[in-house]
Amino acid sequence: MMERLQCAELRSRIITVTQAAALFRDGMTVGMSGFTRAGDCKALPAALAERARHETLRLNLITGASLGNDSDGLMAEAGLLARRLPFQSDARLRRRINEGQVMFIDQHLSETVEQLRAGHIPKIDIAVVEAAAILPDGGIVPTMSVGNSASFVAQAERVIVELNTRMPTGLMGMHDIYVPEAYPGRQPIPLTEPDQRIGTPAIPVDPARIAAIVVTHHPDSPSSVQPPDADTRAIARHIIGFLEGEVAAGRLSDTLLPLQVGIGTIANAVMHGLVDAPFRDLRMYSEVLQDSAIALIDAGRVSFASASSITLSEPVYRRFMERLDEYARRIVLRPQEISNHCEIVRRLGIIAINTALEFDLYGNVNSTHVGGTRMMNGIGGSGDFARHAHLSIFVSKSVAKGGDISSVVPMVAHVDHTEHDVDILVTEWGLADLRNLAPRERAPRVIECCAHPDYREELMDYFQRARAQGGHTPHLVGEALSWHERHARTGSMRSEQMACA
Amino acid sequence: MMERLQCAELRSRIITVTQAAALFRDGMTVGMSGFTRAGDCKALPAALAERARHETLRLNLITGASLGNDSDGLMAEAGLLARRLPFQSDARLRRRINEGQVMFIDQHLSETVEQLRAGHIPKIDIAVVEAAAILPDGGIVPTMSVGNSASFVAQAERVIVELNTRMPTGLMGMHDIYVPEAYPGRQPIPLTEPDQRIGTPAIPVDPARIAAIVVTHHPDSPSSVQPPDADTRAIARHIIGFLEGEVAAGRLSDTLLPLQVGIGTIANAVMHGLVDAPFRDLRMYSEVLQDSAIALIDAGRVSFASASSITLSEPVYRRFMERLDEYARRIVLRPQEISNHCEIVRRLGIIAINTALEFDLYGNVNSTHVGGTRMMNGIGGSGDFARHAHLSIFVSKSVAKGGDISSVVPMVAHVDHTEHDVDILVTEWGLADLRNLAPRERAPRVIECCAHPDYREELMDYFQRARAQGGHTPHLVGEALSWHERHARTGSMRSEQMACA
Repeated sequence: MMERLQCAELRSRIITVTQAAALFRDGMTVGMSGFTRAGDCKALPAALAERARHETLRLNLITGASLGNDSDGLMAEAGLLARRLPFQSDARLRRRINEGQVMFIDQHLSETVEQLRAGHIPKIDIAVVEAAAILPDGGIVPTMSVGNSASFVAQAERVIVELNTRMPTGLMGMHDIYVPEAYPGRQPIPLTEPDQRIGTPAIPVDPARIAAIVVTHHPDSPSSVQPPDADTRAIARHIIGFLEGEVAAGRLSDTLLPLQVGIGTIANAVMHGLVDAPFRDLRMYSEVLQDSAIALIDAGRVSFASASSITLSEPVYRRFMERLDEYARRIVLRPQEISNHCEIVRRLGIIAINTALEFDLYGNVNSTHVGGTRMMNGIGGSGDFARHAHLSIFVSKSVAKGGDISSVVPMVAHVDHTEHDVDILVTEWGLADLRNLAPRERAPRVIECCAHPDYREELMDYFQRARAQGGHTPHLVGEALSWHERHARTGSMRSEQMACA
Repeated sequence: MMERLQCAELRSRIITVTQAAALFRDGMTVGMSGFTRAGDCKALPAALAERARHETLRLNLITGASLGNDSDGLMAEAGLLARRLPFQSDARLRRRINEGQVMFIDQHLSETVEQLRAGHIPKIDIAVVEAAAILPDGGIVPTMSVGNSASFVAQAERVIVELNTRMPTGLMGMHDIYVPEAYPGRQPIPLTEPDQRIGTPAIPVDPARIAAIVVTHHPDSPSSVQPPDADTRAIARHIIGFLEGEVAAGRLSDTLLPLQVGIGTIANAVMHGLVDAPFRDLRMYSEVLQDSAIALIDAGRVSFASASSITLSEPVYRRFMERLDEYARRIVLRPQEISNHCEIVRRLGIIAINTALEFDLYGNVNSTHVGGTRMMNGIGGSGDFARHAHLSIFVSKSVAKGGDISSVVPMVAHVDHTEHDVDILVTEWGLADLRNLAPRERAPRVIECCAHPDYREELMDYFQRARAQGGHTPHLVGEALSWHERHARTGSMRSEQMACA
């Protein structure tokens, strides 16, 4: 414990989780560490949920991104969450969001702390941050994610640290904490390479502001990513083939440009595909590192990876911890404001690969809303990267629910990424390169390259009838969302003609 | 002429516009200066259109933004334009775009040259740039806009200069030419204040690459902005009242933050409203300066304005030229990549005010497509600013076409700006502050604050019925676009009930 809690004056502030939970008041705004299950607080969410079961306690909860340990579900079911931002991926919380019981604000992950600093969202009353250690000056060494913790700590009235004795102290040195200055007078972020360090190894804080320390001993929740299948391997092949073409055309070198890859099964599979691809000395500038990133480092394909979080399956997590020294030389974890910052994304020239729920004939992407209304997880960092990427790639399987849902639709029922921000669309059937194409040129390519063959004819029929009506972006406005309407009514986007065929 | 053409070796390259037009070949990609009518080439568009009337000559034309002098209409009617990007605002060109005769690519104005450098759009064969002077080293001094000219010149096979003897040589020194480096290894853009100069006063070019000089003597086309009316004055009052509230709440000082204001009548009126508002020492970091910017400088309200273009009405243009020395001390014109760059917009903390065609209950904005299909002008720089602004404000009159079109609709028929990028919506009826609100909280506020009273009841009825179905962003997907469909069918969004009432 002395090795972890190096600030002597703080030793007296170790209290139980129940005591710590008693510090919260109804209506408070709370900032918690945690980003895609990694580095989340392990004790206080359950203790706060327990309180909410017996008394009126409603909090506005802001995190980095999603939490592990079923925390979001527990807190939602207990009625603890009045307001939740900027991202979640829990089935029970999602249900309450879609029922209108929890007010969820779905944000670009780089922008939450900017809004906090501006006072556009309420000030953080209490920050709760998981730590591997506390340095002699009070500095908080994060664990497997940085998320928004540095800005929560800077702004909070009181700081509570969950000191997790399960986390190796070897994590010290893997983080790089840099928070942009206030404006006016803000200076450029001095990061010009993915492996550069521009900040401090710990979150700076006056020890007097650390109100309590709770000791925990829990691992992160393992990632729920599925292994590659035939479809995701096909998607990976299309992307790698495309990138090889870019190298052959002289538009990229064989070290490519820094890679960002969204969370999830498809994106993870795409990265796994790079293990055997003819690229070398790759670097990642991403928000989350999944199993695939570790596999690429192991294979010598990726020489350095920058992110805000590391989310691994159980066996890879174990190997990661065993060889932590090795990985710590090749990985840096940053605040999500920096990992996802437009300034850096544009400057480095990122190749961004993110997952779409559905996309349309003209390249508009829905990342979040099933059927246009029901929130899945949130936009996350996809917009931070897609808008300013050198190449903005979106991937999806061409159908879902056994073929009843086409991921390629006449018009998406919710737009997260406009056609301005999408260069390349990929499904298991192929890749549509939309660069330098007007909407009327995009549609046939999207249909031919990406749509499932069962839906191609109807998509082309829609496009041809719409085109006959004229317009830069042809649509039959009375019919544009009819596929979603049909699905809501019949459980399938298949038309009667298709069902009979 | 010696004062303007200071590079001796170039004097022999003065040719007629007909000779210059003969340098173009069918299929070429051409980069032309011009941004919202300012600083456009005055001679070559008409000469090229004339050629296209008699022979097969189809060009891909890339500009800064819109051209003046009816150039876009002339070129479109002559069949000269195969492909046009990234923006236009000409009625005749617009018709051909919507008929599918010109392939228009609607882009964020900051991103075109990034795509050129990356090779994602074809290389510029010939750059045509208006100049007030050519320096001894060949450096091209732009006129009333910079646009994409510096990058066109850097990339083009051949450069043609239109030396405009109508433009005062006093424009020398008003421009600041900075182009970001190639990556990898790109450095931060060293701009931290709107009035800072980081580049050169002229566009650098090896004189050997200037193939021809054409001498012209035409003024810029005057802006077509309408004077403020009762509605736009009400919109201005709502915004000023809101900003006063932000100052009172301590979230802004009375010098506010740098202002960006989109092109057009409403935005211009909002800025005019600032002449009498209790703010001081304002600075603009915008893409276009309109009459209102000059009025604010004259009134001592704006101490400095940075932009990429100056577009004025005839009388203000005349006054500007008469007092050029005075204004030149308070204005800098930059490449549109820099005036609109995400890195700078985020760093400075811009207050961005842009015009919406329509917006919906949840804050999604359509800036471009009438009825969801027909292109108006293009997204322009609105996305460059709105995404990363400190405050992202969109304005619109609540109705159009004598009340037959509501600008507040259940769902926009085309999305240019997602709810993630919109903080404030304003019509003549009021201002909806959407910060820190979930979609279900946004809808009633948008209806009550912004919708025209004639449409409020139906909007609320839609929202309530949608909310009863559940979902984070409640919609009746079969009905969401019915207002647009009704308008296409009947010429009005008014329902039968409303028509009878």
